[in-house]
Amino acid sequence: MSSTNAKIDFPPQNVRKYLEPGPVVLISSQWQEEHDIMTLGWHTIMEFSPSLVGCMISAMNHSHQLIRASGECVINLPTADLVDKVVAIGNSSGTRIDKFSANQLTAAAASKVQAPLIEECYANFECRLYDDALVENYNFFIFEVVKAHICRQPEYPQTLHYTGDGIFTLAGDQHLDKSADFRPEML
Amino acid sequence: MSSTNAKIDFPPQNVRKYLEPGPVVLISSQWQEEHDIMTLGWHTIMEFSPSLVGCMISAMNHSHQLIRASGECVINLPTADLVDKVVAIGNSSGTRIDKFSANQLTAAAASKVQAPLIEECYANFECRLYDDALVENYNFFIFEVVKAHICRQPEYPQTLHYTGDGIFTLAGDQHLDKSADFRPEML
Repeated sequence: MSSTNAKIDFPPQNVRKYLEPGPVVLISSQWQEEHDIMTLGWHTIMEFSPSLVGCMISAMNHSHQLIRASGECVINLPTADLVDKVVAIGNSSGTRIDKFSANQLTAAAASKVQAPLIEECYANFECRLYDDALVENYNFFIFEVVKAHICRQPEYPQTLHYTGDGIFTLAGDQHLDKSADFRPEML
Repeated sequence: MSSTNAKIDFPPQNVRKYLEPGPVVLISSQWQEEHDIMTLGWHTIMEFSPSLVGCMISAMNHSHQLIRASGECVINLPTADLVDKVVAIGNSSGTRIDKFSANQLTAAAASKVQAPLIEECYANFECRLYDDALVENYNFFIFEVVKAHICRQPEYPQTLHYTGDGIFTLAGDQHLDKSADFRPEML
């Protein structure tokens, strides 16, 4: 991220704009002196306000422990040009390496959580654990986005969407504006 | 859907291929003599096997009642060329109209559930309610995909991904095959 593309605040209740399309995200977490990054494609918006996002975070993942212990994380949105770092993060373990330095990513200070932002990502959504009712049975965490940062441009970044088998599809280049066909209250 | 593109069975444990990228889907449901269709962008894969999908289905939606009563639904995957029907379905109420006839869509018989398949969609995933623990508090339904049907081609359909404000982004045309960079057990 260059200094000409510094981030701006974004309303947490509007993060559906970037998460509802279903991109691969990077989850960063911190507990005491340990931090980690993991890739995630299993997430869904659950509410506008409070801004809730549900995430499946396998207990096999080192990040799971850090997030349970701290009750916090950051959801970072990588653009498609970061695909090699996304793949490297998804294919390594945070118990063995520092995923920031191994992938030449910059940990920046968040505003409301201890977990670091990944500066090179298009957007960073600071999250607090909101409900752990399904963590024990499903590894399903319900987070509240308490602070959101996005790049000034472009409005719609090109994002990675995982189909399995090592294959990503891309979204963000083509758009259909159907707003004229919506009832105002449905927009 | 033309007769030359008849559907084939697809392994339910592999539906992540089509749902993990985050497309808008159409949920069809049936209870006694009533059926309905709704649009949905708030969903996530939760497990490969059993094949679990979590869906946020607002209690404001007529479909919510049919799905709670029947414990079943079908997740249908529309391609981008169906965008006008998707928008019309999302902007009308099933308490007032029959969404199949109003949108010239064909209800086909499912194998394992009473809810109808939408024949014109690329894929149809028959679902049974698996866990309703979060329905009361969040309108979050955990379904098991018990039978899956997909079109023979193309392998990767062009799909709609909703960003809010009446604007969809498209995915499915461009792919990155990074399988060579994956550890075999991570594919």
